Amino acid sequence: MPLTRITLHQGKPQHFLNTLSRLLQQTLESHFAVPACDCFQIFEQLAPGQLVYDTHYLGGPRSADFMLLQITAGRPRSALTKRDFYLQLVSQLELQLAVRPQDVMIVISTTQPEDWSFANGQQFISPAAPRA
Amino acid sequence: MPLTRITLHQGKPQHFLNTLSRLLQQTLESHFAVPACDCFQIFEQLAPGQLVYDTHYLGGPRSADFMLLQITAGRPRSALTKRDFYLQLVSQLELQLAVRPQDVMIVISTTQPEDWSFANGQQFISPAAPRA
Amino acid sequence: MPLTRITLHQGKPQHFLNTLSRLLQQTLESHFAVPACDCFQIFEQLAPGQLVYDTHYLGGPRSADFMLLQITAGRPRSALTKRDFYLQLVSQLELQLAVRPQDVMIVISTTQPEDWSFANGQQFISPAAPRA
Repeated sequence: MPLTRITLHQGKPQHFLNTLSRLLQQTLESHFAVPACDCFQIFEQLAPGQLVYDTHYLGGPRSADFMLLQITAGRPRSALTKRDFYLQLVSQLELQLAVRPQDVMIVISTTQPEDWSFANGQQFISPAAPRA
Repeated sequence: MPLTRITLHQGKPQHFLNTLSRLLQQTLESHFAVPACDCFQIFEQLAPGQLVYDTHYLGGPRSADFMLLQITAGRPRSALTKRDFYLQLVSQLELQLAVRPQDVMIVISTTQPEDWSFANGQQFISPAAPRA
Repeated sequence: MPLTRITLHQGKPQHFLNTLSRLLQQTLESHFAVPACDCFQIFEQLAPGQLVYDTHYLGGPRSADFMLLQITAGRPRSALTKRDFYLQLVSQLELQLAVRPQDVMIVISTTQPEDWSFANGQQFISPAAPRA
């Protein structure tokens, strides 16, 4: 945990996706209290017409490079942690990948640690980790 | 918010998807307390064998035109609001798009406003909106 | 309910997917208190580079046969029920389909019964079912 689904239009080169993957993971580790190597992502690349979004609602203008990041977290984070994470992620994507901040939308869903089995049918047991 | 994933078999023409998109958004605005222009949708079109569903469980008979709408909402709605929304959406899809009511399945998941960043890394701040 | 999204690399034959579908449903019925015929699944088959996962985090080594099962449940289950379900599902996949236990990751998200409409715009009304 977490698991992130990145939805965007098809056509981006693999090195773009690879860098996006790395920046997301780095920011989850630095600003979302995610352990190193806890990296699980799905890239969903859609044809035009399959991804519908308003170009100006609460931001924008959104372009054809719009991307939606849906993060399924294994435990709650504070509103403040989430606020800082959004800002840091968008900043890193802009600085290192030239992604326009207007094109990044993020949605977090929360589950419980007991809802996860990473492998071998073993239920995740939460370590005594500090709460973010 | 909300964000809706519409999953159905491939093969529908784009104008069908466009009308479905519009009817969904209209019904979210009229019966789910969603602001105008707050429109975010993913159309997932699957090959035969990728979408598995019982043809008769709690409804049906479901046909190859079965569609699943998964709505991620940014705040809770009352059971009554959801009840009315389901009925209105299915009614509109039937009247205006000839979708069989037996073929429409809807699932809602709920998050919090602070879980959303629409753009620019800005955390969503809930307006003083009336609760539906 | 539940609804399961199975995400894995493309290339598996349809009979593999069919057996996986059946084993998942059988285990949901036997170990997750799911009624017979309550079967809804999406198979998402991705090209290399679209599915990113650490090969060793809390398990593994994960291979190219890695599969992620995301289950959206209609009501909570106890931690114990989930623990037993994970073990039984992975065991069945190994015994009957030769899936390596190291390659199976499971994540459960929970909604409420009122969040579901299976057909006809009818809101699901929970039967007086025993809690698992």
